[in-house]
Amino acid sequence: MDDLLTHKRSPDHRTEIAISPEVTCGGNRLMLVAGPCAVESEEQMQECGDALSKAPVQALRGGVFKPRTSPYSFQGMGEEGLQILVESGKQHGLPVIAEIMSAKQLEDAYDSLDVLQIGSRNMQNFELLKEVSLVKKTVLLKRGFAATIEEFLMAAEYIMAGGNANVILCERGIRSFDSMTRNVLDLGAVAVLKQMTHLPVIVDPSHAAGRYELIADLARAAVACGADGLMIECHPQPKKSVSDARQALSLTEMSGLVKSLAAVAAAIGREVSLASEQVLAAK
Amino acid sequence: MDDLLTHKRSPDHRTEIAISPEVTCGGNRLMLVAGPCAVESEEQMQECGDALSKAPVQALRGGVFKPRTSPYSFQGMGEEGLQILVESGKQHGLPVIAEIMSAKQLEDAYDSLDVLQIGSRNMQNFELLKEVSLVKKTVLLKRGFAATIEEFLMAAEYIMAGGNANVILCERGIRSFDSMTRNVLDLGAVAVLKQMTHLPVIVDPSHAAGRYELIADLARAAVACGADGLMIECHPQPKKSVSDARQALSLTEMSGLVKSLAAVAAAIGREVSLASEQVLAAK
Amino acid sequence: MDDLLTHKRSPDHRTEIAISPEVTCGGNRLMLVAGPCAVESEEQMQECGDALSKAPVQALRGGVFKPRTSPYSFQGMGEEGLQILVESGKQHGLPVIAEIMSAKQLEDAYDSLDVLQIGSRNMQNFELLKEVSLVKKTVLLKRGFAATIEEFLMAAEYIMAGGNANVILCERGIRSFDSMTRNVLDLGAVAVLKQMTHLPVIVDPSHAAGRYELIADLARAAVACGADGLMIECHPQPKKSVSDARQALSLTEMSGLVKSLAAVAAAIGREVSLASEQVLAAK
Amino acid sequence: MDDLLTHKRSPDHRTEIAISPEVTCGGNRLMLVAGPCAVESEEQMQECGDALSKAPVQALRGGVFKPRTSPYSFQGMGEEGLQILVESGKQHGLPVIAEIMSAKQLEDAYDSLDVLQIGSRNMQNFELLKEVSLVKKTVLLKRGFAATIEEFLMAAEYIMAGGNANVILCERGIRSFDSMTRNVLDLGAVAVLKQMTHLPVIVDPSHAAGRYELIADLARAAVACGADGLMIECHPQPKKSVSDARQALSLTEMSGLVKSLAAVAAAIGREVSLASEQVLAAK
Repeated sequence: MDDLLTHKRSPDHRTEIAISPEVTCGGNRLMLVAGPCAVESEEQMQECGDALSKAPVQALRGGVFKPRTSPYSFQGMGEEGLQILVESGKQHGLPVIAEIMSAKQLEDAYDSLDVLQIGSRNMQNFELLKEVSLVKKTVLLKRGFAATIEEFLMAAEYIMAGGNANVILCERGIRSFDSMTRNVLDLGAVAVLKQMTHLPVIVDPSHAAGRYELIADLARAAVACGADGLMIECHPQPKKSVSDARQALSLTEMSGLVKSLAAVAAAIGREVSLASEQVLAAK
Repeated sequence: MDDLLTHKRSPDHRTEIAISPEVTCGGNRLMLVAGPCAVESEEQMQECGDALSKAPVQALRGGVFKPRTSPYSFQGMGEEGLQILVESGKQHGLPVIAEIMSAKQLEDAYDSLDVLQIGSRNMQNFELLKEVSLVKKTVLLKRGFAATIEEFLMAAEYIMAGGNANVILCERGIRSFDSMTRNVLDLGAVAVLKQMTHLPVIVDPSHAAGRYELIADLARAAVACGADGLMIECHPQPKKSVSDARQALSLTEMSGLVKSLAAVAAAIGREVSLASEQVLAAK
Repeated sequence: MDDLLTHKRSPDHRTEIAISPEVTCGGNRLMLVAGPCAVESEEQMQECGDALSKAPVQALRGGVFKPRTSPYSFQGMGEEGLQILVESGKQHGLPVIAEIMSAKQLEDAYDSLDVLQIGSRNMQNFELLKEVSLVKKTVLLKRGFAATIEEFLMAAEYIMAGGNANVILCERGIRSFDSMTRNVLDLGAVAVLKQMTHLPVIVDPSHAAGRYELIADLARAAVACGADGLMIECHPQPKKSVSDARQALSLTEMSGLVKSLAAVAAAIGREVSLASEQVLAAK
Repeated sequence: MDDLLTHKRSPDHRTEIAISPEVTCGGNRLMLVAGPCAVESEEQMQECGDALSKAPVQALRGGVFKPRTSPYSFQGMGEEGLQILVESGKQHGLPVIAEIMSAKQLEDAYDSLDVLQIGSRNMQNFELLKEVSLVKKTVLLKRGFAATIEEFLMAAEYIMAGGNANVILCERGIRSFDSMTRNVLDLGAVAVLKQMTHLPVIVDPSHAAGRYELIADLARAAVACGADGLMIECHPQPKKSVSDARQALSLTEMSGLVKSLAAVAAAIGREVSLASEQVLAAK
């Protein structure tokens, strides 16, 4: 495995990936991504954009094509939701991220998105990996919930081998025997990945915990562990969220969390963007 | 979950699915499927077809589009392999099964295949499930290696909900902490599924065991447990197999296994096709 | 690991262990063990002994010192329960098996029991393993619910290394991510163990399944897989069982199961004791 | 489960446990425990005591009765090792912790130890839990490697129900499918436990990671997550450690780690003892 594109060539080899002219991932500054599990309405995304751009976070997420266990569950707003997401991103100066699950969705959403998310269930959908390897846009690759670290890196290798070097890895919890949390956040994998690969590694504590009251603790732990960023689900009114309501933070909680993350980041010599400077930069 | 299409409407509700004019799955007679992990050459598939049609098995498998952990591993012979598989099937009177991983492969292979296999890594590739729900050909759906029984049934529900009632489920082992076997064959899941769903449930002991010397024991266990069939990897020269060589039976071992399965099947009131009668029927 | 006492010295090396003058484990004939999760009363054990000796099974089990997750759950009848178990065994000509969890219980129960069970939670209670290594009575060692096959064999090695060669291994399901069954019965481990060790290997489908309606299928699967015996929980009135009621078979169901096991055993060249001959032998 | 002794009676219910006149666990100040996997010699423990008391840590650990997978591995120095550990603790003003595995070891070591450790393999050794429930000394209870959070708390409940309220919980990683780390550190469990129980919760990153180069990242993550302390394996010459050499920090690395933990602790409003003040207090 010595010549893998995903592997470091030297211990301090790190790649910093720009997802917009202002935002990068993998440098000293953390990339915070937030937004609802699913885009539900224009109003919802306006509220999210308003609050999150001031939190501040560096990117806005929102599911528009939703992978759902049951075919009878809400499958996302699709193209309409995509336009709402993009509009809110533009208005608030935030790059946007959404999951795509097929070649067709890639084509439909390509021009609108700043980052293409490949979800856990598709981490080894090799045909999809090959498709996103042929484009230049940044891919946020989430670890499959029973994928080994090696399989995770090999999935990223598919994307790099095809020609797209812009890959961000995302640990989001693995499946285990306990039902007290939705998944088990594997920060050991984050520590291993930071040593093996030069690619940025971020953490999604929302899907790991599955319960909003655990997210702040896990987010701080991820930062202390060396993660290059976080992706967190939040919602203007968490209890009214159409999906994964149990794990969404309120926008106020999210803003509070960002402040507390800044202190932890500083403790390990990294930084979190402050609201005032980001607003200035956005002008 | 009372109105799910995959659920039984009464305790003895069973669906028998025809994959060719002669072969069904889900009735009293077991459906045995065998063939190499990957189609490698015309000669290889001729040898397989010769031996397996006399074993006898009821269908021929062979990977032509291969999902591989590494992008640098052999990815299958593609269209050329498909033609070799189909040819061998025709010559030996055996319906053929191969995995497809994308809408494009579905289109390319649709006319050639008798059964469309959706592999473990794509069990929750919902866009692909929706594609195969729109066709009429039988789908062999393999359980994801960390999928719950409910998620497995829900993946089948996607296919049925879209209009394709011809689904065969396949348990192939789940991921666990021990490395002595490749996966852990979950026959409890087979027993649960046989009670919950009217769909046929078959077992793949090859990927579960990952070691050829365990396969016969697990195959007999699966039959005793109530599985409606088996899918087993074999190869004319297992050690020369280009992929998963460690788990392939030789063609001779496969023939011997069929005989021993007949006795176990009889012990629980089911049957395995005998060579002579199948040859007669094929005429 | 070449010189381990638990390992085979040649491929056909098998050890047959006598647990009473009439009953052995590891030979061609299966050893069936049955009885309630917990000894509850003299009447209960009389009914069990009556029915089970005619089923027939070859040994009677019953928990008297119970390992319970909560300190507030029923902890077993202790010494009193032990006497009830022993009495029923004597009256019905069945050797008796119960779990012991400490050096003190070993001392108290030693003279009464034919087989000393070490439960899953104590598989790596090395001090207890050392204690039972110093006696001569047969030890039934259950696999820990997250123990690797190697750790399982090494626990048996502790007993043999200390001087007690009479060890029977028992696979009883491992912990996994699905909650549809209580544990996942790992028959691949049984197949592996039968190849690695000369010691007898039996299966407990009751704790694996956790649901009575799955037990017959898993019991038949275990026999077909090559297990040397089974240990199954049953109760005169399953719904009134004080512990694990959900997984107990009725005595009638147990008798029926023995019959069906005979056919599966015969299919692989092994045998199950028939009621009439055993009754004759007991005279 | 409303009246469990281990559960909080109000959201801010916390118990601070004193393990020596100077050291407590569960208050604002973190309790750091360090020392070798196994006590090997007087010289080794002198070096450890010297360096660790200045790091500073608040307690000294060292295995003297070792639970080992194989009966042929080094089983610890026993009574002799215990005296070496105690001597080093006394000389350096550090309370000492060691694992006990049986009633006999409890009796032998009781007077020497400040904290009685119950290891992962004995978390559900209920007879041992009952024994330590009858004494007054603090028990450090490590989570079983496949124990649910509920089972973990119930094991602590055994100790409290028997009369010993001095229990410290220790998360040390759970077993999973990936072999890149020895176990998966479950910080979600730490976050859950801190919300459910008033008992202190510490983290052992050494057994979780199994590789020294990951330990600092995981230690910092544990502190950021809210752990009340850490237990870390270190050795004067890690490569010469007789057991678990792969996961031991050098004494220099350990001292460096303490410094970096202080910053993370401060970021969440907690504190780590500074060398100078502790030395003063020890006078």
